[in-house]
Amino acid sequence: MDAVKRTRLDPAQRRAQLIDLGARMLAERPLEQISVEDIADQAGVSRGLLFHYFASKSEFHLAIVRHSSEQMLQRTEPSESDDPMLTLRSVLASYVDYVTENRNTYVSLLRGTASGDPQMREVFEQTRDIMAKRTLDQLPKIGLTRTPQVELAVRGWIAFVEEATISWLRAPAITREELIDLTVQSLPALALAAVGFDAGPDLGLLQSN
Amino acid sequence: MDAVKRTRLDPAQRRAQLIDLGARMLAERPLEQISVEDIADQAGVSRGLLFHYFASKSEFHLAIVRHSSEQMLQRTEPSESDDPMLTLRSVLASYVDYVTENRNTYVSLLRGTASGDPQMREVFEQTRDIMAKRTLDQLPKIGLTRTPQVELAVRGWIAFVEEATISWLRAPAITREELIDLTVQSLPALALAAVGFDAGPDLGLLQSN
Repeated sequence: MDAVKRTRLDPAQRRAQLIDLGARMLAERPLEQISVEDIADQAGVSRGLLFHYFASKSEFHLAIVRHSSEQMLQRTEPSESDDPMLTLRSVLASYVDYVTENRNTYVSLLRGTASGDPQMREVFEQTRDIMAKRTLDQLPKIGLTRTPQVELAVRGWIAFVEEATISWLRAPAITREELIDLTVQSLPALALAAVGFDAGPDLGLLQSN
Repeated sequence: MDAVKRTRLDPAQRRAQLIDLGARMLAERPLEQISVEDIADQAGVSRGLLFHYFASKSEFHLAIVRHSSEQMLQRTEPSESDDPMLTLRSVLASYVDYVTENRNTYVSLLRGTASGDPQMREVFEQTRDIMAKRTLDQLPKIGLTRTPQVELAVRGWIAFVEEATISWLRAPAITREELIDLTVQSLPALALAAVGFDAGPDLGLLQSN
């Protein structure tokens, strides 16, 4: 950290550096234990200077959470592909890997104290809105029309993927590939349920499995 | 409330009364704004007596949350029926109606400050565990074997139902019946996805819908 201490940075770089240090620290401890003093120390700046960039501790924490959410959204950005199911698979593989690599950060944000803070929750909700919008944009490519049911199913599907991934990290009883398969297949399955396709009677087919 | 003030209650009744008053108050304001003084006033007991039943404000809040969760679980207890899909529909109708009737309480607990508290979160997780177990117990009746994938899908489904119901309450673009249909159909749909049934190729069927 000595090298960092001596570096002169312009304000935008300094701000980004402080947020980045905070985000890294988040992998090791919950947000509420990240103090402004620790970050100032690591960055080689005074506590006063840190408050020049962030008016309060909670504003700094919010900036860290926004940064983490943007990072996740960048990692899971859908690439253009001719096969919408391949696009979906690639997005979900990136999501599962991002959450795995950042498990402490991600799980502590979504299932920790931050989830009870109204401003933090707004960031998570906006992030989910972007994920839902991206997903809805892909649906016409697999022949599905956007209806209020389908929109609700997609919002629910985001929650499904989040919960399945976090549960899997806590007790990984299946492989990474199997988890990705489950999250990929669940989208058309839920979209079918949303347009009124009755899977019930077909379940008999599976008794031999 | 005057009638209540004068009533002599045995300790178990008094404890239940205090929790019940707290749970009712929860419909009007978030948990963190429920003060011990208000409850003591309404029950006609001294603040000191309230602390005789609950060692701290947070212990009192926790008792309120446990009470609400138990109430929801009671309302959504599956009744024995020959048709497992009818049982599922009746459970989900009860769930949607419970959440609708207790929308302030339920949404503020699951999506409010309480969701950031480790002990509260444990209560919510235990509640979801019970819902998942009840669901898993029904699955053999529709021909599904319990596998790690199916277990994960059921946990994710609980999150799906919770999120779809809360989103629907915020912006009800479909009817109560349509929401119940969606949550009912989503379970076999997700269970199918979990056993590796590929819904993708069948989506073409829906283009005419």
